[in-house]
Amino acid sequence: MSKNTTLCYLELNGKYLMLHRVKKQVDENKDKWIGVGGHMEEGEAPEECLVREVLEETGLKLLDYRLRGIVTFVSDRYETDYMFLFTSDCFEGTMIECDEGNLEWVEKSRVYDLPLWEGDKVFFRLLEEREDVFLLTLRYQGDELIETILDGRKIENNAEIEGE
Amino acid sequence: MSKNTTLCYLELNGKYLMLHRVKKQVDENKDKWIGVGGHMEEGEAPEECLVREVLEETGLKLLDYRLRGIVTFVSDRYETDYMFLFTSDCFEGTMIECDEGNLEWVEKSRVYDLPLWEGDKVFFRLLEEREDVFLLTLRYQGDELIETILDGRKIENNAEIEGE
Repeated sequence: MSKNTTLCYLELNGKYLMLHRVKKQVDENKDKWIGVGGHMEEGEAPEECLVREVLEETGLKLLDYRLRGIVTFVSDRYETDYMFLFTSDCFEGTMIECDEGNLEWVEKSRVYDLPLWEGDKVFFRLLEEREDVFLLTLRYQGDELIETILDGRKIENNAEIEGE
Repeated sequence: MSKNTTLCYLELNGKYLMLHRVKKQVDENKDKWIGVGGHMEEGEAPEECLVREVLEETGLKLLDYRLRGIVTFVSDRYETDYMFLFTSDCFEGTMIECDEGNLEWVEKSRVYDLPLWEGDKVFFRLLEEREDVFLLTLRYQGDELIETILDGRKIENNAEIEGE
């Protein structure tokens, strides 16, 4: 079993738009901070899913976006998630309340201090450092990140990414 | 219903390694020429699927590769196919016979003359022209390509891609 999803980090004045997932009772991401996005619907392309989900969750219409990475989440607890990771600094509209959590603009340097999935810190670093699209595989056992593979090569820790 | 697949065009001396699908009785790609690749298995990342499929179908081991595009095939006949399109000019080993068809190195300029899916000609052009990863959605009615969307923008014909 697997699913395809999109995740987007909107960028404005050195901040990311983060979603604090506190509203849904049952939520894999309960109390975590993530970006906006969701599941691909039947016959929907990644870029269509992206635009729809950002509009639904934020009220903002993307005018442009960049694919930044393909992140494969493998877990002993959840189905495999093929996540298309985007950023966008080009959008219009008025922000709405999100059903799934609270939306908040957070300084890019401060996102690491938030309660995040361990692997999310890996791709935040890659968003800072990489211009090209990266292939990242994150293997979890429960909530613990047990393996990180970047562009087909196993890496031992985040420091190794920073050093590249 | 949907599936995730990889497709790879190996490159050598200005040629692509093409697979002429003539061996399987029941084959969506019967008699067409395509690259090598296949379905992602349970818990398998795109880059893992790529390396495995290329090895299985050609005997060649990829030493490096590049993600070139995400191609979403939507069809009234088949399930939606999210295809991760790669190229590679860095591999080793000895070519084997492929169960699924005949492998043949074809001059890049001559691939357009082969019996291809109409949409494949679109991404062959993009492989020539684009350095960054493209998002391409191809909508088919039967064998006919009825809609082409590139990076979220509908395009009328291949000429428009060439003109960009």
